Amino acid sequence: MRKIPTAILGAGGWIGQHFARLLADHPWFEPPLLVGGERTQGRTLEEIWQIPEEGPPGPIARDRLTTASPAALERAGIRVAFSALPGDKASLLETELARRGIAVFSNASAHRMDPRVPLLIPEVNPRHLGLLHPRPGRGFIVTNTNCSAAGLLLALKPLRDRFPVERVYVTTYQALSGAGFPGVPSLAIGDNVVPYIPEEETKMEEETRKVLGSLRGNGIRPLALRVIANCARVATREGHLEAVTLPGKYPEEGDILRAWKDFHPLQEGKEPALPTAPLDPVLVHPAPDRPQPLPDRWAGVPHRARGMAVTVGRLRVDPDGIRFYLLVHNAVRGGAGGSVLNAELAVREGLLGEVV
Amino acid sequence: MRKIPTAILGAGGWIGQHFARLLADHPWFEPPLLVGGERTQGRTLEEIWQIPEEGPPGPIARDRLTTASPAALERAGIRVAFSALPGDKASLLETELARRGIAVFSNASAHRMDPRVPLLIPEVNPRHLGLLHPRPGRGFIVTNTNCSAAGLLLALKPLRDRFPVERVYVTTYQALSGAGFPGVPSLAIGDNVVPYIPEEETKMEEETRKVLGSLRGNGIRPLALRVIANCARVATREGHLEAVTLPGKYPEEGDILRAWKDFHPLQEGKEPALPTAPLDPVLVHPAPDRPQPLPDRWAGVPHRARGMAVTVGRLRVDPDGIRFYLLVHNAVRGGAGGSVLNAELAVREGLLGEVV
Amino acid sequence: MRKIPTAILGAGGWIGQHFARLLADHPWFEPPLLVGGERTQGRTLEEIWQIPEEGPPGPIARDRLTTASPAALERAGIRVAFSALPGDKASLLETELARRGIAVFSNASAHRMDPRVPLLIPEVNPRHLGLLHPRPGRGFIVTNTNCSAAGLLLALKPLRDRFPVERVYVTTYQALSGAGFPGVPSLAIGDNVVPYIPEEETKMEEETRKVLGSLRGNGIRPLALRVIANCARVATREGHLEAVTLPGKYPEEGDILRAWKDFHPLQEGKEPALPTAPLDPVLVHPAPDRPQPLPDRWAGVPHRARGMAVTVGRLRVDPDGIRFYLLVHNAVRGGAGGSVLNAELAVREGLLGEVV
Amino acid sequence: MRKIPTAILGAGGWIGQHFARLLADHPWFEPPLLVGGERTQGRTLEEIWQIPEEGPPGPIARDRLTTASPAALERAGIRVAFSALPGDKASLLETELARRGIAVFSNASAHRMDPRVPLLIPEVNPRHLGLLHPRPGRGFIVTNTNCSAAGLLLALKPLRDRFPVERVYVTTYQALSGAGFPGVPSLAIGDNVVPYIPEEETKMEEETRKVLGSLRGNGIRPLALRVIANCARVATREGHLEAVTLPGKYPEEGDILRAWKDFHPLQEGKEPALPTAPLDPVLVHPAPDRPQPLPDRWAGVPHRARGMAVTVGRLRVDPDGIRFYLLVHNAVRGGAGGSVLNAELAVREGLLGEVV
Repeated sequence: MRKIPTAILGAGGWIGQHFARLLADHPWFEPPLLVGGERTQGRTLEEIWQIPEEGPPGPIARDRLTTASPAALERAGIRVAFSALPGDKASLLETELARRGIAVFSNASAHRMDPRVPLLIPEVNPRHLGLLHPRPGRGFIVTNTNCSAAGLLLALKPLRDRFPVERVYVTTYQALSGAGFPGVPSLAIGDNVVPYIPEEETKMEEETRKVLGSLRGNGIRPLALRVIANCARVATREGHLEAVTLPGKYPEEGDILRAWKDFHPLQEGKEPALPTAPLDPVLVHPAPDRPQPLPDRWAGVPHRARGMAVTVGRLRVDPDGIRFYLLVHNAVRGGAGGSVLNAELAVREGLLGEVV
Repeated sequence: MRKIPTAILGAGGWIGQHFARLLADHPWFEPPLLVGGERTQGRTLEEIWQIPEEGPPGPIARDRLTTASPAALERAGIRVAFSALPGDKASLLETELARRGIAVFSNASAHRMDPRVPLLIPEVNPRHLGLLHPRPGRGFIVTNTNCSAAGLLLALKPLRDRFPVERVYVTTYQALSGAGFPGVPSLAIGDNVVPYIPEEETKMEEETRKVLGSLRGNGIRPLALRVIANCARVATREGHLEAVTLPGKYPEEGDILRAWKDFHPLQEGKEPALPTAPLDPVLVHPAPDRPQPLPDRWAGVPHRARGMAVTVGRLRVDPDGIRFYLLVHNAVRGGAGGSVLNAELAVREGLLGEVV
Repeated sequence: MRKIPTAILGAGGWIGQHFARLLADHPWFEPPLLVGGERTQGRTLEEIWQIPEEGPPGPIARDRLTTASPAALERAGIRVAFSALPGDKASLLETELARRGIAVFSNASAHRMDPRVPLLIPEVNPRHLGLLHPRPGRGFIVTNTNCSAAGLLLALKPLRDRFPVERVYVTTYQALSGAGFPGVPSLAIGDNVVPYIPEEETKMEEETRKVLGSLRGNGIRPLALRVIANCARVATREGHLEAVTLPGKYPEEGDILRAWKDFHPLQEGKEPALPTAPLDPVLVHPAPDRPQPLPDRWAGVPHRARGMAVTVGRLRVDPDGIRFYLLVHNAVRGGAGGSVLNAELAVREGLLGEVV
Repeated sequence: MRKIPTAILGAGGWIGQHFARLLADHPWFEPPLLVGGERTQGRTLEEIWQIPEEGPPGPIARDRLTTASPAALERAGIRVAFSALPGDKASLLETELARRGIAVFSNASAHRMDPRVPLLIPEVNPRHLGLLHPRPGRGFIVTNTNCSAAGLLLALKPLRDRFPVERVYVTTYQALSGAGFPGVPSLAIGDNVVPYIPEEETKMEEETRKVLGSLRGNGIRPLALRVIANCARVATREGHLEAVTLPGKYPEEGDILRAWKDFHPLQEGKEPALPTAPLDPVLVHPAPDRPQPLPDRWAGVPHRARGMAVTVGRLRVDPDGIRFYLLVHNAVRGGAGGSVLNAELAVREGLLGEVV
């Protein structure tokens, strides 16, 4: 298979840089064209790099960020655009790209609740890709969910497949990188917790219902599931921790753990079916004090799937409900990695046509 | 009134030092005798001081910590002992002190669930002091609650007085000082959250039920209230934040806010009835992103009641429940300050006899 | 004496808020008019407050920030303006205010190295006020030093009065608030140190030389002292720590400690001569691991002088030099408090004319 | 070559775990026997793992820590022991191991200043191995330096090879892991800097002089170089930052940078001569605000040498001296990695006899 030409929109931001990290040497996609804004235009990826734990990815470290109109991207033969645009810019620009025949995989919130746009997690609702009927020369938009919803959905899906889940109470401990860069001022968060992230709680509820909803005609009928969220920012760099309580009658501990451990919807034989898919999308940590952001955020094998697994732990089963904690890498599984996995599924499903 | 001779047990620890801060110039109690362990014996309060935000309290800064048996404390004429002992030492020692006629106000967990011991928050369950029938020469034990339960109870009490509260979902963001000193290693908590605090969740449930329970004969009948807690440690110095969700039918926002704002059980005229009582035990913060540990932990007026008020905020009212955040200074209202207030109530109620 | 009408320029910023804190109930100055920029105009001090350790100062908490031209300030009868303006705005605006007869006490760097402008620390170079010859209706500018230089100068002055100091090696650990708000992004400084603060090292050298220089005619001849600085940002909220090494022959430890302890240039009898002057401008801490930012930044008595004392410690005397650490509250002594003290000295010296 | 049987002493501590990381799949050494203390005996490496950024190394993750006497280690055929023992235990135990024919590579300070023990950094003083004259059946001790000294020495060596360096002023910003685990309490270092690390400043001076000293007969004559250090702890996880000032006449910037860039004492052809040696032991970072602990601590290629390179930057050349910052991974280059590299050099030099 010939590699597919790609671009990253918003390549200068935090999620944009995570996209660059994941796409610099991808087996199916060409190293991306880096499209930035006015601030970063003309500078190399190396010069603007802000993810300190690892350096800029070698193959594209000295590529320069450009500005490029949708028309220019079309002319340049870009087939897939990964969008890390801010919400206000994403709305029109992503639509225009799709109109020009480009497949857009977006981390932006602009189109998430659009009934014609799949809000996709490959392990959870792959059939929602059925919303798309691409024809030659026609593009589309696929979005990933909010970072906190992504972790919740992966932990919920195996439970909902086996047990009735009617109500979800979730409280978050969200990392700084969820606000991008420069994001949260150090004076605002050191020795502090900020119990407010604009619109986050609503996103968690609505997006969870849509992802778990069912495909009906040309739309999605959301699941009638109540998600009640409390969202706060804490002083961790990356990795959202979530405390989940599910009221209701549940089976014993062993059955619940088995539901998570047996969850391998993307596996073919013993191998992941997509390059960025983790072998175990939900890992159960046995220690009494895990998961934690620092040691667990990069969970996931093989190497390309680092940060793509959700870790769960501290399961407590009571007569009237269960509780557990989960940890998701907000910028990988809940951000750039989620979109890359979405694109891989779309390619595998033939939505990009002749490429495979 | 002549001031009452007091001692602090465990004066060298974090809560012990908060006791010292509060008792150094108390209007009813004499500056405390500082009783420490082997590690601190013979050293001055100044030398061992670990609360960095403020220095050791002037009047007793150069007092030396001593070791003292219950018999020695009795001989020294100590009438009131404030206990910041670790749980394992507290059990026998507090009992022995009470047997010798000393009134023990304890922050330790050892006797909290003893049916004959009041688990007291003066604004919430003052009548539970009725468990005690002290006679001349006979002491007693009164405990305060776990630090997280203290904040929850103060926020719940005004609601429960007016509305049916049947179930409480609470998730905590607890500060480092809750684990004492040296407590949590910096390498374990920097850039991290630890979703496990041994026994904390059980304490929150059981203690809340006892405090809200009713006095029956010589014991307390716990309230049949389900409290489902998820407790985690975050990298803040002091001040526990809690996300609270109460399912059920509640009135509109204004009524709930009014319940909190009108809650003044300890007020006499326009003044607090006890020296360490805050004018408003529950403060409602109007900003969309409050309460927060850093700016709100020291809430409370007058000056002596700093850290004794609980701040609530972010009230959200839905058709099937309400949500809010609360902030409590774990080492003051949830620790030393809670015990001092308990002692003040006991004095006012005449439980220490002729002293008033 | 009638209180003097004042204004704060840049009242919405971090230093501006510290000015508000110090001037809300000052014995010589009226509560300040709050002049902000476009972002803060029309909002109350309470609404924009960012210093979390303490709330907005009661007397002016609900005052609204305004914009005001120099002409408007003149018309409003403002006699003294405290400037927390950013450098680029300060240059012209402060000059214009002085031209209109207003005495400007500035924390901005714009005029610090102007040979006609006193760069003042009252305990160090009060005679530099002699540069000013104000006449009725004519204003002037007095600046305080860079925050790091302020701490260094207070620790050096008593030594230089008694011993030959020829060369100063200083390395800093500077707090976040030195960069204002929003300032340093949390993702840039958590688990990190940034060894670069633009222009800071040059300021420390040049300003130290000017402050220690001598008044000659209408200018200052800088001292020929070499200051070699390395400046870095660390993740503390407030309080700059500095490691100082002075090569050369010095007397024994006791003599050096005495130089610091005997340093009381502003004392009259046993009292500070100015309202914001600390009783001991240089405090020697005896513990082996002090000074530290967290416990020592608010050093200084009386209460109004909190944060105005510099703490020194860890003195080590070798045959070829001495070493010590110092701690200065960057936003108080090295910022707003320094300017307020400068204004107090100017009033006391009669530079504001009939007011006293 | 057959791999050499090894053991880690103190495998349960922070440095011990870094040893385990480096030795789990070493090309020359067998996976180590894990020798712990009473606290960790019988537990698996996985269970006690404390380095959160990466999990326990797969090949030995489930090995259990044992206690083992020197006699037992001898009987087990251990040829090389890596010591991460605390200083007080290291002294006798390491001597006894050497007496029994085992080659000890130690991170402990106990024998560092022993004139018969090489204090070794392979790139700096490989000839000091000449102190050893091992015979069949006779072991020896080789130590690495203090973590801060290691970084300083690597940055100084290329300069001293070309220019006269007579005096070194160094001020450190040292990471938490330098104190081991549990180490520094979170309450002591959050929002704080502690300007005191016991004995650290003396170690930096004495060890630097010994490493740069010359082999004379059976001992080392220390270099007459004055090192004046100020050492402080900051709230970073790993990576010591150091501000270095060298007074004196130095050439221009380009010559100094070239000295660092041309420093490749362990290179053979274009390859590192030892498995854990970094290709460039001193990396010059071009950005104005580097090096920094977070992005630079893991510097070093190839992959096995991650954390073994020292990064320098912010070179400033003045007429009377130069200044720069350096960053060293304290637990790798300044700890376990340094000892592993020492062992590799000893093997290569034939000090372990027939093994190569």
